[in-house]
Amino acid sequence: MISASQLRTYTEQIFNAIGCSDADARLAADVLVSADLRGVDSHGVARLPGYVRLYDHGRVNPQPHIRIVHETPSTAVVDGDRGLGLVVGPWAMNVAIEKARTAGTGWVAVRNSNHFGIAGYHALLATQHDMIGQAMTHAAPLVAPTFSLEKMLGTNPIAVAIPAATEPTFLADFASTAVAYGKLEILQRKGQDIPVGWAQDADGRPTTDANAIRNGGALLPLGTDREHGSHKGYGLGAVVDIFSGVLSGANYGPWVPPFATAGFMAANEGVGAGTGHFFGAMRIDAFRPADEFKAHMDMWIQRFRQAKAVDGQRVLIPGDPERLIEADRLANGIPLLEPVVQSLQELGERFGVSIM
Amino acid sequence: MISASQLRTYTEQIFNAIGCSDADARLAADVLVSADLRGVDSHGVARLPGYVRLYDHGRVNPQPHIRIVHETPSTAVVDGDRGLGLVVGPWAMNVAIEKARTAGTGWVAVRNSNHFGIAGYHALLATQHDMIGQAMTHAAPLVAPTFSLEKMLGTNPIAVAIPAATEPTFLADFASTAVAYGKLEILQRKGQDIPVGWAQDADGRPTTDANAIRNGGALLPLGTDREHGSHKGYGLGAVVDIFSGVLSGANYGPWVPPFATAGFMAANEGVGAGTGHFFGAMRIDAFRPADEFKAHMDMWIQRFRQAKAVDGQRVLIPGDPERLIEADRLANGIPLLEPVVQSLQELGERFGVSIM
Repeated sequence: MISASQLRTYTEQIFNAIGCSDADARLAADVLVSADLRGVDSHGVARLPGYVRLYDHGRVNPQPHIRIVHETPSTAVVDGDRGLGLVVGPWAMNVAIEKARTAGTGWVAVRNSNHFGIAGYHALLATQHDMIGQAMTHAAPLVAPTFSLEKMLGTNPIAVAIPAATEPTFLADFASTAVAYGKLEILQRKGQDIPVGWAQDADGRPTTDANAIRNGGALLPLGTDREHGSHKGYGLGAVVDIFSGVLSGANYGPWVPPFATAGFMAANEGVGAGTGHFFGAMRIDAFRPADEFKAHMDMWIQRFRQAKAVDGQRVLIPGDPERLIEADRLANGIPLLEPVVQSLQELGERFGVSIM
Repeated sequence: MISASQLRTYTEQIFNAIGCSDADARLAADVLVSADLRGVDSHGVARLPGYVRLYDHGRVNPQPHIRIVHETPSTAVVDGDRGLGLVVGPWAMNVAIEKARTAGTGWVAVRNSNHFGIAGYHALLATQHDMIGQAMTHAAPLVAPTFSLEKMLGTNPIAVAIPAATEPTFLADFASTAVAYGKLEILQRKGQDIPVGWAQDADGRPTTDANAIRNGGALLPLGTDREHGSHKGYGLGAVVDIFSGVLSGANYGPWVPPFATAGFMAANEGVGAGTGHFFGAMRIDAFRPADEFKAHMDMWIQRFRQAKAVDGQRVLIPGDPERLIEADRLANGIPLLEPVVQSLQELGERFGVSIM
């Protein structure tokens, strides 16, 4: 167990050590640790060595000149200058928020970025200003579209954050796949099988082999197969890819660079600039008075919570599971897996930073 | 078999007969017949008697005063004045398009409307102006959120239309459920079982009974069960409901009025005004030059078409299946089921309009 503040300090020091400004290091650490707090362990500090590897290979610029390259009253395209996605993301989201102040909504496509952590972090930024926030990103190809044997799309998550009055914020934040890659990795590590419907093998057949994806297999879109709507998950992932990549001038589809492996980096055979994201902010009172809207959101949430449920279960509001974990981890600390602690200790030794 | 133009003329005459203006009748007929042309038979003229029933029960105003009740540079809220959704939808989408001309994007929430036909029709309107179009709507509750026994959401479809240069338009248009209700109705009519994963029975258990939904059961969200991501389909359907209903001031969740049954109508126990929709238009050159974007969309589409596929299949682009059916039906006519022909003939007799 480690406290969030300890973990934040350590992470901040590592980002400092690779040359990030104090403010950027603090922000990047906050994004990563917020994932650990919310139970999305695969997107938290476990990825820190990966970000440093990106830096080592020249794919991350620790002092980026992030800038708007094109804009209209409600839109902007942002070039991340190869900055950490953890820093570029909030920067771009703030542009969307500023646009929304005057135009009612703001929409920002980002290119030349990197992995931005959890989508929900960015979407939530808007809710502090009585706005609805949206964040999406594409990622390295792991997913086979319906009928495909090739990996063509990333897990391409979408987050939508909607404020309420007395009820907690509605936060839908999900990959457009049957399962997030992090959940599959956990079973890989444990040497266990995965449920049918998460992945296919190299011949496109259903598989329970957690390692199938390393051996020519692929993750499946949300919906799993054609009969259960995999073409919808594919369509959703495709929209995320096009908004993040084609609209921004980043790479797209199978050309999206991998998170932190060396292979692709040298080649540089892309169709655009780095990884892309897409952000949106909608001012609630651009539609109806914020108080009125938020009172109805309370009613929405309360009515859904009251829905008659299957024995022993209850109907949750998007964001509830992560909120429960966060409350627990704020109080009791964050459990880190032994291999993660080890990799962070090694990283710490390299930069003379202690984790405890 | 009936030709699209014959079907359009007949439908137009029926809408005329209930008091719609010539222009509105023409538009409403075009929306319905476009569904039949694209193979979405459940949303085509088969629904015409339902729209007339809405009119009979005073839920459709054939001569609505559709108006903007609130706006900012990039947003508007439209009150449909109980007009046909088939007419209110395009009206609102045009507001979004006009907003996008000056602000870069336009976002319109609609209340006090009715069933708007296929979402794709409205989203496609934007592509004629080098814009990306989005359309979504909620609908009467048929879907149980994850762990719920109660029907809380409609099939809540989303459409996103993205223009390319020489390739056809990318059109994702799908319900946020494992299967569209229309597909289940076809098996109901044939007296056949449905695949496991489409619906649950009154106790929340998986069922193959196509009639389960009439007997306390419910449709399942995209993802089918918790293990395969049903909370994501639920989250997606919830976002559509909140954008369409809470943001606009319409009803939401279990309060969304049913399409064309009398029961609910008298009660009028809603939490807002009628049914709601949500539309978006994004000018492509608010992000990057349209020609450049469309050339990359061609590349995106071509690369995905070339993906290595499962034996005997190929990777399709969202919109392909409907496009193939449309080409066939434009050439060879639209096949109507016998019960549909019969109901249209009865409707025709009432208003003195012949279908052939």
